Amino acid sequence: MPGLAGRIGSLLLGRRLANREQAQRRIGAFEGLPAMGLDGLGSSAYGPEAALTVLIPLGAGSLAWIGWVMTPIVLLLLILFVSYWQTLRAYPNNGGAYIVSKENLGTNLSLLAAASLMVDYVLNVAVGISAGVGALVSALPTLHPHIRPLCLGILALITVVNLRGTLDAGRLFALPTYLFVGSFALVLATGLFEAVSSGGHPRAIVAPPKLTGASEAVSVWLLLRAFAAGCTAMTGVEAVSNGMTAFREPRLTHGRRTLSAIVVILGMLLAGIAYLASCYEIGAMDQTKAGYRSVLSQLASAVVGDGALYFVAIGSLLCVLTLSANTSFVDFPRLCRMVAADGFLPASFAIAGRRLVYSAGILYLACVSGVLLFVFGGITDALIPLFAVGAFLTFTLSQAGMVVHWRRSREPGRRSHLGINAIGTFTTGAALAVIVIAKFKEGAWITVIVIPVVVAVLKVIHGYYEGLASRMRMTAPLQLEDTREPVVLVVVESWSRLTVKALTMALSLSSEVIAVHLAQLAGPDQDEHRQGLEAKWRDFVEAPARAAGLRAPRLRVLPASYRAIHQPILRLVRELEEAGHGRRIAVLIPELVKLRWYQHLLHLDRGRKLRKELLRAGDPRLMVVDVPWMKDQESRT
Amino acid sequence: MPGLAGRIGSLLLGRRLANREQAQRRIGAFEGLPAMGLDGLGSSAYGPEAALTVLIPLGAGSLAWIGWVMTPIVLLLLILFVSYWQTLRAYPNNGGAYIVSKENLGTNLSLLAAASLMVDYVLNVAVGISAGVGALVSALPTLHPHIRPLCLGILALITVVNLRGTLDAGRLFALPTYLFVGSFALVLATGLFEAVSSGGHPRAIVAPPKLTGASEAVSVWLLLRAFAAGCTAMTGVEAVSNGMTAFREPRLTHGRRTLSAIVVILGMLLAGIAYLASCYEIGAMDQTKAGYRSVLSQLASAVVGDGALYFVAIGSLLCVLTLSANTSFVDFPRLCRMVAADGFLPASFAIAGRRLVYSAGILYLACVSGVLLFVFGGITDALIPLFAVGAFLTFTLSQAGMVVHWRRSREPGRRSHLGINAIGTFTTGAALAVIVIAKFKEGAWITVIVIPVVVAVLKVIHGYYEGLASRMRMTAPLQLEDTREPVVLVVVESWSRLTVKALTMALSLSSEVIAVHLAQLAGPDQDEHRQGLEAKWRDFVEAPARAAGLRAPRLRVLPASYRAIHQPILRLVRELEEAGHGRRIAVLIPELVKLRWYQHLLHLDRGRKLRKELLRAGDPRLMVVDVPWMKDQESRT
Repeated sequence: MPGLAGRIGSLLLGRRLANREQAQRRIGAFEGLPAMGLDGLGSSAYGPEAALTVLIPLGAGSLAWIGWVMTPIVLLLLILFVSYWQTLRAYPNNGGAYIVSKENLGTNLSLLAAASLMVDYVLNVAVGISAGVGALVSALPTLHPHIRPLCLGILALITVVNLRGTLDAGRLFALPTYLFVGSFALVLATGLFEAVSSGGHPRAIVAPPKLTGASEAVSVWLLLRAFAAGCTAMTGVEAVSNGMTAFREPRLTHGRRTLSAIVVILGMLLAGIAYLASCYEIGAMDQTKAGYRSVLSQLASAVVGDGALYFVAIGSLLCVLTLSANTSFVDFPRLCRMVAADGFLPASFAIAGRRLVYSAGILYLACVSGVLLFVFGGITDALIPLFAVGAFLTFTLSQAGMVVHWRRSREPGRRSHLGINAIGTFTTGAALAVIVIAKFKEGAWITVIVIPVVVAVLKVIHGYYEGLASRMRMTAPLQLEDTREPVVLVVVESWSRLTVKALTMALSLSSEVIAVHLAQLAGPDQDEHRQGLEAKWRDFVEAPARAAGLRAPRLRVLPASYRAIHQPILRLVRELEEAGHGRRIAVLIPELVKLRWYQHLLHLDRGRKLRKELLRAGDPRLMVVDVPWMKDQESRT
Repeated sequence: MPGLAGRIGSLLLGRRLANREQAQRRIGAFEGLPAMGLDGLGSSAYGPEAALTVLIPLGAGSLAWIGWVMTPIVLLLLILFVSYWQTLRAYPNNGGAYIVSKENLGTNLSLLAAASLMVDYVLNVAVGISAGVGALVSALPTLHPHIRPLCLGILALITVVNLRGTLDAGRLFALPTYLFVGSFALVLATGLFEAVSSGGHPRAIVAPPKLTGASEAVSVWLLLRAFAAGCTAMTGVEAVSNGMTAFREPRLTHGRRTLSAIVVILGMLLAGIAYLASCYEIGAMDQTKAGYRSVLSQLASAVVGDGALYFVAIGSLLCVLTLSANTSFVDFPRLCRMVAADGFLPASFAIAGRRLVYSAGILYLACVSGVLLFVFGGITDALIPLFAVGAFLTFTLSQAGMVVHWRRSREPGRRSHLGINAIGTFTTGAALAVIVIAKFKEGAWITVIVIPVVVAVLKVIHGYYEGLASRMRMTAPLQLEDTREPVVLVVVESWSRLTVKALTMALSLSSEVIAVHLAQLAGPDQDEHRQGLEAKWRDFVEAPARAAGLRAPRLRVLPASYRAIHQPILRLVRELEEAGHGRRIAVLIPELVKLRWYQHLLHLDRGRKLRKELLRAGDPRLMVVDVPWMKDQESRT
């Protein structure tokens, strides 16, 4: 009989799944793109925009340089693609940076990779949702007072959907994803056709604002900063490698298909946007000024005007941005599961939940990013500079790990593989250096502090588990010398069915039973049961035991001076241990089973408190026996 | 080693007291007046004021009639005094209306008395604190925005002081109480001297505002309403009778002294205020108009001017008003204790807490009145009409009970006693009728609904306990036929010291032990321990058992399809019960003892969940054994 909470749980989260149902819960590439790809696809919106924003001081001159910035980014993307393509085959069971580093670079660097990924995934949720809501609010200004509830509501939606499972998330978010891909494909194709057919100078249907003259000369530093800013477009490429266990068999095929889909779509979007921006003479606008429009919005209306296609494209882009947090919800719990299985995170992160996803990781991610969204009021611009550092640190570690992997490998063709990953290591490492230097003052320094702190926490947790394991380790066989039956203490309040049941249970455990009654337990004035109990003991316990020739359970009355049961009981336990030469002692607690909430108000729950205190006392010879008694089932036994 | 919470508790509440310390925690009349008398003394401020407010339409004519209203009130007070004087002797252990009614009028009327008192005590806290804070705020208008936090802060203070004990409350609140009594004695004595020496027409130092002409003719109805309003001055007279157990021996002496102090001071205040108001021509002012001053404030400044004595008198009056809630905190828990001891309230109300007061009652009172204060924003004027109904219902029931008591009594002088209580019954009953009729529309109807609802709740609770007791009742002796040892199931995760300890404990309870390992407990992909465990079982358990000629504990691996332990275990329990012809079964749970908060984050606490589910399953042959294992103490045993 499920309670109200249980019924709401079933409604929200679906029924509890059995282990054997796992195969049917895995996803293919169709669900993989919405589940894991939204972070990557959403990046197409802010990568080029961020690069163009850095180039604003060049005015109209920025258009001449955007190609120089975006081309290396797209090339880097291709290098990452080929590298991860290889990684997926080498590590088909979650080949993420953590595993690759652990196998090839050692524990410390693997923890660095794990910490970077964790920080990145948390930031991705907060930044993704607030960016999406920010875009939504700038489109519908009436929603402006509700930014925080909107952010938290979307977070709750994504959390619940992912608690239902990755399959459900993939299916639910498929519609906006494919709408986004389709509509932008149409916009870019139209734009390219116009550009080519007009010889590179198409006429804008809605003209973007005229770009001004340059206020600054071009410099290598400016281009490097633009490159660093544009690199945010690449976060999300590692998603597939961290979430491989979500795919059904043949896993490698589905994973590679999803990776290809993400990279191909992202690459075409980036290249297309960069090319069309320069053709249509679209630059970034100052976000802090009124009338701001994003690059993609300008581009879409320049190419197709302000018609239905524009609204579909921008609307689905909004959804993709808002839901880009989903990538974190797919990968973060799987990453945490691996880290927890190695003992660096609490064990609960390694437990498959009701719907066979790692619910603890999902809930933790939701809580931390929820706190960030709440504290920052849903406006997380300050967090954006922190963002790319973790991703590129992960890329570099993952690529470097693969280099080591190929060096150790005996596979044919390992040299060309090694070459590709070496290029990947070098380029992502260089990009990381540029990003850290370019964004250091804006906030990258925070990441540089936070990631080592996370690593330290992971190591402390591991130290605890290691210490515990070394103390629990047992290499000797079972000792069978002392199997004497224990002395059983039965806590007795009054003469009742509960007491009789407990005594019967006690006598089945040992022939030496002592009943303990606590006097003045409710206060100095209260001692009602004692007299009656002592009389009944003679008639109802001692007499039949004598008749049956058994040792009768004794009754001992102990004063509860401080109105707590555990103190006198523990004193008696120590006394018996001394007298009994190390015999074990079992304290038996008769307990009324409470099935309804109001019973907890009407009963004192002394049993729970007693059990807790007895267990905490840490006596190595003590055990606690709970004897349940249920009102409705046993009144006639 | 007390935790942080424990240390804060000690600091706030003082150390835990032993039962034997109770005698030293009892109070005398010196602490009794501040502890129980503030409700009564504070009444002097609003009783005459309320009566004069009803008389406002008479203008200056009200002065001629105030004597006709206040004289019966003071007479009624004297009747109540004599009645309670007798009651205290007849019922020296909490002779409150509940006990008197229970002994003489039956259960239903005693519950009516209890419910009236409870409602009244809750209202007294809310109304007392908000009236005090209201007066404070009208004296210091800068505090106006903070009414709600002020109210809740004072409530918290009174709660904590009373959780420390009635003795502490009596001592802490003695200073403002005796300051109030002393300063108003001085004011009234000065006023009387001036009035007598001037032949009834003293000259006011600060003249009160001139009273206007009558806007309405005097009527019996108006005078009855004024009488009903003035009767609020009498709430608090029953306090001593409900709190008798707080006094030290000789209890009757201390109780009677406290009662006398309260009634004599209150009577003189009422009489003095009524007489001086008419001499100095002081009427009530409209509270809703600017420049409002209370009757006592006008009186004090008329008699002694706006000097130091004025400020001491009004300041201490403010304290007395604000702290008048303390009476409820002394009596409500003691009343609830008696009602709970009879099974009409949850058992926790009958338990003496850390400081030998009934903490559950104190906390419950604080919560309910805190909610009232919070909901009403600290302005509880709307609750005042509800107030006197409960008090006069209690008076009437208590007096009627005493009449029955004396009729049954064989004591000498019982006739005169009966006569006094009969007059008390009649007068308080008549006053109750007047109050209900006069205040019905203003809110007394709410009390008329709430009190029966409370009575119903008390009866439902009693029904639950009665039903439980009848099912637990046992009149037969202990049966000793079936003392077969149980089958013991040991939940085993891996081969560790914890497992070894649990197996050893299990073997001391029974020779038939089955170890149960749950496969795929963490999820479909996880089954690490199984292989190693099966191998170790052969070497470490079965081999030594065979060598010692014992029956070896078997190892059974059960699939945990839904990742919960209790389902497969319960299935096994049922299977064994069927096979074992009703043998008892003990499930043994090895448990790591968690002493630090962070351990709860790092461990799964599966044991607790398993225990809960097994107990809830309600199998009459099942018991649950907890075997604690403590990291630091047993690693080398």
